[in-house]
Amino acid sequence: MENFVFHNPVKVIFGKGQIASLGREIPKGSRVLFAYGGGSIKANGVHAQVVAALTQAGLAFKEFAGIEPNPRYETLMKAVALARAEKLDFVLAVGGGSVVDGCKLVAAAIDFAGDSWDIVRRRAAPTAAKPLGVVLTLPATGSEMNLFSVISREETGEKLGWGHPSVMPRFSVLDPETTYSLPARQVGNGIVDAFVHVLEQYLTYPAEAPLQDRLAESVLATLVEIAPAAMATPPDYQARANLMWCATMALNGLIGQGVPQDWTTHMIGHELTALTGIDHARTLAAVWPGVVVVQREAKRAKLLQFAERVWGLTEGPEEERIDQAVIMTRRFFESVGVPAGLGGYEVPADVPEAIAARLAQRGGLPLGERGDLDADGVRRILEAA
Amino acid sequence: MENFVFHNPVKVIFGKGQIASLGREIPKGSRVLFAYGGGSIKANGVHAQVVAALTQAGLAFKEFAGIEPNPRYETLMKAVALARAEKLDFVLAVGGGSVVDGCKLVAAAIDFAGDSWDIVRRRAAPTAAKPLGVVLTLPATGSEMNLFSVISREETGEKLGWGHPSVMPRFSVLDPETTYSLPARQVGNGIVDAFVHVLEQYLTYPAEAPLQDRLAESVLATLVEIAPAAMATPPDYQARANLMWCATMALNGLIGQGVPQDWTTHMIGHELTALTGIDHARTLAAVWPGVVVVQREAKRAKLLQFAERVWGLTEGPEEERIDQAVIMTRRFFESVGVPAGLGGYEVPADVPEAIAARLAQRGGLPLGERGDLDADGVRRILEAA
Repeated sequence: MENFVFHNPVKVIFGKGQIASLGREIPKGSRVLFAYGGGSIKANGVHAQVVAALTQAGLAFKEFAGIEPNPRYETLMKAVALARAEKLDFVLAVGGGSVVDGCKLVAAAIDFAGDSWDIVRRRAAPTAAKPLGVVLTLPATGSEMNLFSVISREETGEKLGWGHPSVMPRFSVLDPETTYSLPARQVGNGIVDAFVHVLEQYLTYPAEAPLQDRLAESVLATLVEIAPAAMATPPDYQARANLMWCATMALNGLIGQGVPQDWTTHMIGHELTALTGIDHARTLAAVWPGVVVVQREAKRAKLLQFAERVWGLTEGPEEERIDQAVIMTRRFFESVGVPAGLGGYEVPADVPEAIAARLAQRGGLPLGERGDLDADGVRRILEAA
Repeated sequence: MENFVFHNPVKVIFGKGQIASLGREIPKGSRVLFAYGGGSIKANGVHAQVVAALTQAGLAFKEFAGIEPNPRYETLMKAVALARAEKLDFVLAVGGGSVVDGCKLVAAAIDFAGDSWDIVRRRAAPTAAKPLGVVLTLPATGSEMNLFSVISREETGEKLGWGHPSVMPRFSVLDPETTYSLPARQVGNGIVDAFVHVLEQYLTYPAEAPLQDRLAESVLATLVEIAPAAMATPPDYQARANLMWCATMALNGLIGQGVPQDWTTHMIGHELTALTGIDHARTLAAVWPGVVVVQREAKRAKLLQFAERVWGLTEGPEEERIDQAVIMTRRFFESVGVPAGLGGYEVPADVPEAIAARLAQRGGLPLGERGDLDADGVRRILEAA
């Protein structure tokens, strides 16, 4: 185990009916920017619950609607302008990971004097972010309990990740009932997103960290166990509750402390979304099979452990166990409606080359837990996928 | 899974050499109460490392030595008097769980106007606790990452637990090398303490919380895996590091969210320590076998799951699997030098009756995850143990 610093002060308020507690969590006298996405929260009643909680607490608020999936910098700057004009001093993100990611940038940019894009490019740190609260409606990204954010910029076609401790939510309300109205596609995407978040922190090489390994395997095995019920109609409260807590635990930092991490699948996946518009989680399922082909030797010990502890594969030659674990993982993705491998998506022939070039140009290479994947490695992954 | 609120803002600074970072974590200009136990930190060099870090950061500090195992209220009030006289405004606890527990009361009492014992009796909440930092030297209680504290009062023979969010450490430095000089008895006690902390949150009844179950099993299985190396001489860094992280994870609140909890073993164990002076962890190993005899039916489903997932027992009739799991757990305690069952300790014949009476008198009954253990149940547990 390597040295680490773990500090996650996000207050998680979990369970049915918890949106009503919002008013107690936002400081009295705050002027709230209530930001959300495309309006699904109006259809499912979450908007009304939030308005009721804010009103009952006597909090002034302004609404900002329209933060899109893969939140766009251009849209978010409009929210910043509204917050500045109305002197709003608390940001409340209501939605999925895209709304939360977007609101992290909004919270950081309101009082930021320079070019806000510098925050995303990591050329400047936010000085004094406005406090952020979250009502999560889509279990997937883990953004509700971490400091990360991914922002897309239409003008340049970029999709970049950044993070800062000042934008960790002060609180996140996780009510599994808010997920009941999600389309099956988004539930499946969320399951794959959470699963791959764990793989990026787990499927590397052994680091004498048996507790972290088991914590990661706990999230993976639980996702596999609950996925059928989480996908079922009518919605099953306990399955949705467990999915929501798994997705948060997958990326709140805990399982990755003191161990090597990879993130190759995500880095390539972000480029794939930027170039083709494929859903984030789907790009992960598309790319991951290629990563395990190219990195099979580097990841051998952990692939065998993954095969045994997550998929129960203990018999037969090593190669077969690894093959079988990859097949079972691909089938798992497909069981929740997400095609595994690039073949399941329409991707123009020049995309692999373009992704390798974009990563190289931005200084995003090398990738991999050992830093051994260059542009050629990226091309080989996309070919193998 | 039941609704829950999880909020653990403790910053964990983990690994070798991390004591040197102390100075950055304590606000500039603070006047520090540097509190510790019996002086072992002078023998093993931790005292010198702390003094160097405080001095280098230009922090004023006063030392308070002599906080004992099962920290005594009378001693802690002397630390409070020193802090008040010297206008100290930051409490730095350097030691094991007893020092940390004691310093939580000190931090809460310095600015408390009433009778400080009311804080421990939970008749009053601390209004504005002084900030607390920790350098942990003994992995066991989990106090370094939670809000709990257990205090003994000589005058009344009481040993009481309390807790408050305001006394959660601002940071805890966990350097596994500080544990190298521990006697084997304390390492073994720590392993048992952490193991039983998990059992109290896990060995109850199924609550549709498969992730929490697996997280708990992760800590249990890892403790079993690393115990031999953690007990070995010369000390093994990785084993001590994993033990330290397991002990913290066993009681930082995470594994117990949204699930029933028991704490019968602890409640009876605290009385046993108060009456006989037996080490805390040893009372847990003494009492636990009695709890699983009396509560065997209530805990049946989880005992079977524990047998399968922690001890690998999947064959044979249910009764045999449960018996075998209990035997393997007792052997595990004994493998780290801690006798299992009351028979391994010299306990006067009238103690079971006295414990039942004390718990009843204080309103500490009923116990158990279903609240079904009265005074007679406590007596039966102690007889069965």
